[in-house]
Amino acid sequence: MTDRETDKIRAVIEGAWRALGAKNAEATLAHYAPDFVHYSLAPPLRSGSLDAQALAGWFATWRGEVGHEIRDLEVAVGGDVAYCTSINRMTGTKTDGEQVDLWYRATVGLRKIDGRWRITHEHESVPFYMDGSYRAAVDLKP
Amino acid sequence: MTDRETDKIRAVIEGAWRALGAKNAEATLAHYAPDFVHYSLAPPLRSGSLDAQALAGWFATWRGEVGHEIRDLEVAVGGDVAYCTSINRMTGTKTDGEQVDLWYRATVGLRKIDGRWRITHEHESVPFYMDGSYRAAVDLKP
Repeated sequence: MTDRETDKIRAVIEGAWRALGAKNAEATLAHYAPDFVHYSLAPPLRSGSLDAQALAGWFATWRGEVGHEIRDLEVAVGGDVAYCTSINRMTGTKTDGEQVDLWYRATVGLRKIDGRWRITHEHESVPFYMDGSYRAAVDLKP
Repeated sequence: MTDRETDKIRAVIEGAWRALGAKNAEATLAHYAPDFVHYSLAPPLRSGSLDAQALAGWFATWRGEVGHEIRDLEVAVGGDVAYCTSINRMTGTKTDGEQVDLWYRATVGLRKIDGRWRITHEHESVPFYMDGSYRAAVDLKP
Protein backbone atom coordinates (compact mmCIF):
# COMPACT_ATOMS: atom_id res chain seq x y z
CA MET A 1 0.00 0.00 0.00
CA THR A 2 2.68 2.48 1.02
CA ASP A 3 4.81 1.52 -1.99
CA ARG A 4 1.84 2.22 -4.26
CA GLU A 5 1.33 5.59 -2.56
CA THR A 6 5.02 6.38 -2.98
CA ASP A 7 4.74 5.62 -6.70
CA LYS A 8 1.71 7.91 -7.00
CA ILE A 9 3.56 10.72 -5.20
CA ARG A 10 6.62 10.34 -7.45
CA ALA A 11 4.30 10.52 -10.46
CA VAL A 12 2.81 13.80 -9.17
CA ILE A 13 6.24 15.38 -8.63
CA GLU A 14 7.53 14.25 -12.01
CA GLY A 15 4.28 15.22 -13.72
CA ALA A 16 4.29 18.69 -12.21
CA TRP A 17 7.82 19.31 -13.46
CA ARG A 18 7.14 17.84 -16.90
CA ALA A 19 4.17 20.22 -17.27
CA LEU A 20 6.21 23.17 -15.98
CA GLY A 21 9.13 22.39 -18.28
CA ALA A 22 6.76 22.19 -21.25
CA LYS A 23 5.23 25.56 -20.21
CA ASN A 24 1.75 24.08 -19.83
CA ALA A 25 0.12 26.18 -17.08
CA GLU A 26 -3.13 24.20 -16.88
CA ALA A 27 -1.37 20.83 -16.59
CA THR A 28 1.01 22.30 -13.99
CA LEU A 29 -1.73 23.78 -11.81
CA ALA A 30 -3.65 20.47 -11.81
CA HIS A 31 -0.94 19.08 -9.49
CA TYR A 32 -1.29 21.83 -6.85
CA ALA A 33 -3.74 22.37 -4.01
CA PRO A 34 -5.44 25.78 -3.76
CA ASP A 35 -3.85 26.55 -0.35
CA PHE A 36 -0.32 26.04 -1.64
CA VAL A 37 2.56 27.63 0.32
CA HIS A 38 5.66 28.43 -1.77
CA TYR A 39 9.19 29.19 -0.55
CA SER A 40 10.68 29.92 -3.96
CA LEU A 41 14.23 30.40 -5.28
CA ALA A 42 13.35 34.09 -5.80
CA PRO A 43 11.92 36.58 -3.28
CA PRO A 44 9.60 37.08 -1.44
CA LEU A 45 10.24 34.84 1.59
CA ARG A 46 6.84 33.23 1.13
CA SER A 47 4.15 33.30 -1.53
CA GLY A 48 0.68 31.83 -1.58
CA SER A 49 -1.29 30.25 -4.39
CA LEU A 50 0.23 29.57 -7.79
CA ASP A 51 -1.79 30.99 -10.65
CA ALA A 52 -1.78 30.82 -14.43
CA GLN A 53 -0.73 34.46 -14.74
CA ALA A 54 2.33 34.02 -12.50
CA LEU A 55 3.28 30.87 -14.42
CA ALA A 56 2.87 32.63 -17.77
CA GLY A 57 5.19 35.38 -16.55
CA TRP A 58 7.82 32.81 -15.58
CA PHE A 59 7.44 30.84 -18.83
CA ALA A 60 8.01 34.07 -20.78
CA THR A 61 11.50 34.43 -19.26
CA TRP A 62 12.70 31.23 -20.99
CA ARG A 63 13.53 30.41 -24.62
CA GLY A 64 11.94 27.05 -25.43
CA GLU A 65 11.42 24.34 -22.84
CA VAL A 66 12.96 24.28 -19.36
CA GLY A 67 15.12 21.22 -18.69
CA HIS A 68 14.87 19.51 -15.32
CA GLU A 69 16.40 16.58 -13.47
CA ILE A 70 15.31 15.23 -10.07
CA ARG A 71 18.01 13.35 -8.17
CA ASP A 72 17.89 11.36 -4.89
CA LEU A 73 14.13 11.71 -4.51
CA GLU A 74 13.10 10.36 -1.11
CA VAL A 75 9.43 10.09 -0.13
CA ALA A 76 8.05 9.92 3.44
CA VAL A 77 4.34 9.08 3.48
CA GLY A 78 1.93 8.67 6.40
CA GLY A 79 -1.83 8.43 5.79
CA ASP A 80 -2.84 11.42 3.67
CA VAL A 81 0.29 13.52 4.27
CA ALA A 82 3.70 13.16 2.61
CA TYR A 83 6.89 15.07 2.09
CA CYS A 84 9.71 14.52 -0.40
CA THR A 85 13.32 15.66 -0.61
CA SER A 86 15.52 15.82 -3.68
CA ILE A 87 18.42 17.61 -5.32
CA ASN A 88 17.21 19.09 -8.60
CA ARG A 89 18.81 20.60 -11.67
CA MET A 90 17.24 23.27 -13.87
CA THR A 91 18.71 23.97 -17.30
CA GLY A 92 17.86 26.16 -20.25
CA THR A 93 18.29 29.55 -21.87
CA LYS A 94 16.61 32.71 -20.64
CA THR A 95 15.20 35.15 -23.18
CA ASP A 96 18.11 37.53 -22.47
CA GLY A 97 20.53 34.79 -23.56
CA GLU A 98 21.66 33.73 -20.05
CA GLN A 99 22.48 30.02 -19.87
CA VAL A 100 21.02 28.47 -16.73
CA ASP A 101 22.43 25.29 -15.19
CA LEU A 102 21.42 25.37 -11.55
CA TRP A 103 21.48 22.63 -8.91
CA TYR A 104 19.18 23.31 -5.97
CA ARG A 105 17.46 21.59 -3.04
CA ALA A 106 13.73 20.86 -3.14
CA THR A 107 11.37 19.83 -0.36
CA VAL A 108 7.79 19.15 -1.44
CA GLY A 109 4.81 18.65 0.89
CA LEU A 110 1.69 16.84 -0.33
CA ARG A 111 -1.79 15.99 0.90
CA LYS A 112 -4.18 13.40 -0.45
CA ILE A 113 -7.34 15.35 -1.22
CA ASP A 114 -10.42 13.54 -2.57
CA GLY A 115 -8.25 10.50 -3.32
CA ARG A 116 -5.58 12.41 -5.28
CA TRP A 117 -2.15 13.54 -4.11
CA ARG A 118 -1.75 17.29 -4.55
CA ILE A 119 1.25 19.53 -3.84
CA THR A 120 0.54 21.77 -0.82
CA HIS A 121 4.06 23.11 -0.26
CA GLU A 122 7.29 23.63 -2.15
CA HIS A 123 10.57 24.87 -0.73
CA GLU A 124 13.33 25.40 -3.31
CA SER A 125 16.69 26.96 -2.50
CA VAL A 126 20.42 27.19 -2.80
CA PRO A 127 22.51 27.87 0.31
CA PHE A 128 24.59 31.04 0.59
CA TYR A 129 28.28 31.60 1.28
CA MET A 130 28.95 32.64 4.86
CA ASP A 131 32.31 34.21 3.99
CA GLY A 132 30.99 37.75 4.32
CA SER A 133 30.01 37.92 0.64
CA TYR A 134 26.40 36.70 1.10
CA ARG A 135 26.56 35.26 -2.43
CA ALA A 136 23.95 32.67 -3.33
CA ALA A 137 25.72 29.35 -3.93
CA VAL A 138 24.48 28.86 -7.50
CA ASP A 139 27.66 26.99 -8.51
CA LEU A 140 27.31 23.87 -6.34
CA LYS A 141 27.02 20.36 -7.77
CA PRO A 142 25.87 17.25 -5.91
CA MET B 1 -6.01 12.92 18.28
CA THR B 2 -4.53 14.92 15.42
CA ASP B 3 -4.63 18.10 17.52
CA ARG B 4 -2.69 16.30 20.24
CA GLU B 5 -0.14 15.11 17.65
CA THR B 6 0.14 18.67 16.32
CA ASP B 7 0.87 19.91 19.84
CA LYS B 8 3.55 17.26 20.28
CA ILE B 9 5.17 18.21 16.98
CA ARG B 10 5.16 21.92 17.88
CA ALA B 11 6.83 21.01 21.17
CA VAL B 12 9.58 19.12 19.32
CA ILE B 13 10.29 22.02 16.98
CA GLU B 14 10.29 24.58 19.78
CA GLY B 15 12.34 22.28 22.02
CA ALA B 16 14.96 21.67 19.35
CA TRP B 17 15.40 25.42 18.84
CA ARG B 18 15.46 26.18 22.57
CA ALA B 19 18.24 23.59 23.01
CA LEU B 20 20.14 24.93 19.99
CA GLY B 21 19.81 28.55 21.14
CA ALA B 22 21.11 27.57 24.60
CA LYS B 23 24.04 25.73 22.92
CA ASN B 24 23.11 22.40 24.49
CA ALA B 25 24.28 19.79 21.95
CA GLU B 26 22.91 16.74 23.78
CA ALA B 27 19.43 18.25 24.24
CA THR B 28 19.44 19.39 20.59
CA LEU B 29 20.42 15.99 19.20
CA ALA B 30 17.70 14.24 21.24
CA HIS B 31 15.13 15.78 18.86
CA TYR B 32 16.71 14.41 15.67
CA ALA B 33 16.55 10.99 13.98
CA PRO B 34 19.85 9.34 13.03
CA ASP B 35 19.05 9.41 9.28
CA PHE B 36 18.49 13.17 9.26
CA VAL B 37 18.77 15.02 5.90
CA HIS B 38 19.77 18.69 6.18
CA TYR B 39 19.45 21.42 3.55
CA SER B 40 21.15 24.15 5.56
CA LEU B 41 21.51 27.94 5.16
CA ALA B 42 25.21 27.33 4.42
CA PRO B 43 26.79 24.99 1.84
CA PRO B 44 26.93 22.13 0.96
CA LEU B 45 23.66 21.49 -0.91
CA ARG B 46 22.91 18.58 1.39
CA SER B 47 24.38 17.18 4.57
CA GLY B 48 23.60 14.04 6.51
CA SER B 49 23.52 13.38 10.20
CA LEU B 50 23.91 16.13 12.76
CA ASP B 51 26.60 15.42 15.34
CA ALA B 52 27.84 16.96 18.57
CA GLN B 53 31.12 18.04 16.96
CA ALA B 54 29.40 19.93 14.14
CA LEU B 55 27.09 21.59 16.67
CA ALA B 56 29.99 22.56 18.91
CA GLY B 57 31.68 24.18 15.92
CA TRP B 58 28.56 26.21 15.17
CA PHE B 59 28.02 27.16 18.83
CA ALA B 60 31.61 28.46 18.95
CA THR B 61 30.82 31.05 16.24
CA TRP B 62 28.33 32.86 18.52
CA ARG B 63 28.79 35.09 21.58
CA GLY B 64 26.28 33.97 24.20
CA GLU B 65 22.91 32.47 23.34
CA VAL B 66 21.33 32.46 19.88
CA GLY B 67 17.95 34.19 19.73
CA HIS B 68 15.17 32.61 17.71
CA GLU B 69 11.56 33.28 16.77
CA ILE B 70 9.24 30.92 14.88
CA ARG B 71 6.38 32.63 13.03
CA ASP B 72 3.37 31.21 11.13
CA LEU B 73 4.14 27.62 12.08
CA GLU B 74 1.81 25.30 10.16
CA VAL B 75 1.80 21.55 10.81
CA ALA B 76 0.53 18.85 8.40
CA VAL B 77 0.32 15.44 10.09
CA GLY B 78 -0.76 12.05 8.70
CA GLY B 79 -0.14 8.86 10.69
CA ASP B 80 3.54 8.78 11.63
CA VAL B 81 4.75 11.40 9.13
CA ALA B 82 4.48 15.18 9.40
CA TYR B 83 5.93 18.31 7.89
CA CYS B 84 5.89 21.90 9.14
CA THR B 85 6.44 25.27 7.52
CA SER B 86 7.38 28.53 9.21
CA ILE B 87 9.16 31.84 8.79
CA ASN B 88 11.92 32.05 11.38
CA ARG B 89 14.19 34.75 12.76
CA MET B 90 17.70 34.19 14.10
CA THR B 91 19.37 36.91 16.14
CA GLY B 92 22.61 37.31 18.03
CA THR B 93 26.24 38.34 17.87
CA LYS B 94 28.94 36.29 16.18
CA THR B 95 32.35 36.01 17.85
CA ASP B 96 33.79 38.38 15.21
CA GLY B 97 31.29 41.03 16.33
CA GLU B 98 28.85 40.66 13.40
CA GLN B 99 25.27 41.37 14.45
CA VAL B 100 22.91 38.76 12.98
CA ASP B 101 19.21 39.47 12.46
CA LEU B 102 18.08 37.06 9.76
CA TRP B 103 14.60 36.06 8.63
CA TYR B 104 14.50 32.77 6.75
CA ARG B 105 12.10 30.04 5.63
CA ALA B 106 12.07 26.65 7.39
CA THR B 107 10.47 23.38 6.36
CA VAL B 108 10.83 20.54 8.86
CA GLY B 109 9.97 16.87 8.22
CA LEU B 110 9.27 14.52 11.12
CA ARG B 111 8.58 10.84 11.72
CA LYS B 112 7.09 9.21 14.78
CA ILE B 113 9.67 6.61 15.82
CA ASP B 114 8.99 4.34 18.80
CA GLY B 115 6.16 6.64 19.85
CA ARG B 116 8.21 9.87 19.73
CA TRP B 117 8.26 12.53 17.03
CA ARG B 118 11.81 13.08 15.74
CA ILE B 119 13.10 15.51 13.13
CA THR B 120 14.15 13.64 9.97
CA HIS B 121 14.60 16.63 7.66
CA GLU B 122 15.26 20.36 7.83
CA HIS B 123 15.35 22.78 4.94
CA GLU B 124 16.35 26.35 5.84
CA SER B 125 16.94 29.08 3.30
CA VAL B 126 16.67 32.61 2.08
CA PRO B 127 15.81 33.27 -1.57
CA PHE B 128 18.28 35.05 -3.86
CA TYR B 129 17.93 38.14 -6.03
CA MET B 130 17.46 37.30 -9.70
CA ASP B 131 18.68 40.72 -10.85
CA GLY B 132 22.02 39.35 -12.05
CA SER B 133 23.69 39.94 -8.68
CA TYR B 134 22.96 36.46 -7.25
CA ARG B 135 22.94 38.04 -3.79
CA ALA B 136 21.32 36.03 -1.00
CA ALA B 137 18.23 37.91 0.19
CA VAL B 138 19.30 38.22 3.83
CA ASP B 139 17.45 41.55 4.23
CA LEU B 140 13.85 40.37 3.82
CA LYS B 141 11.22 40.70 6.54
CA PRO B 142 7.86 38.90 6.67
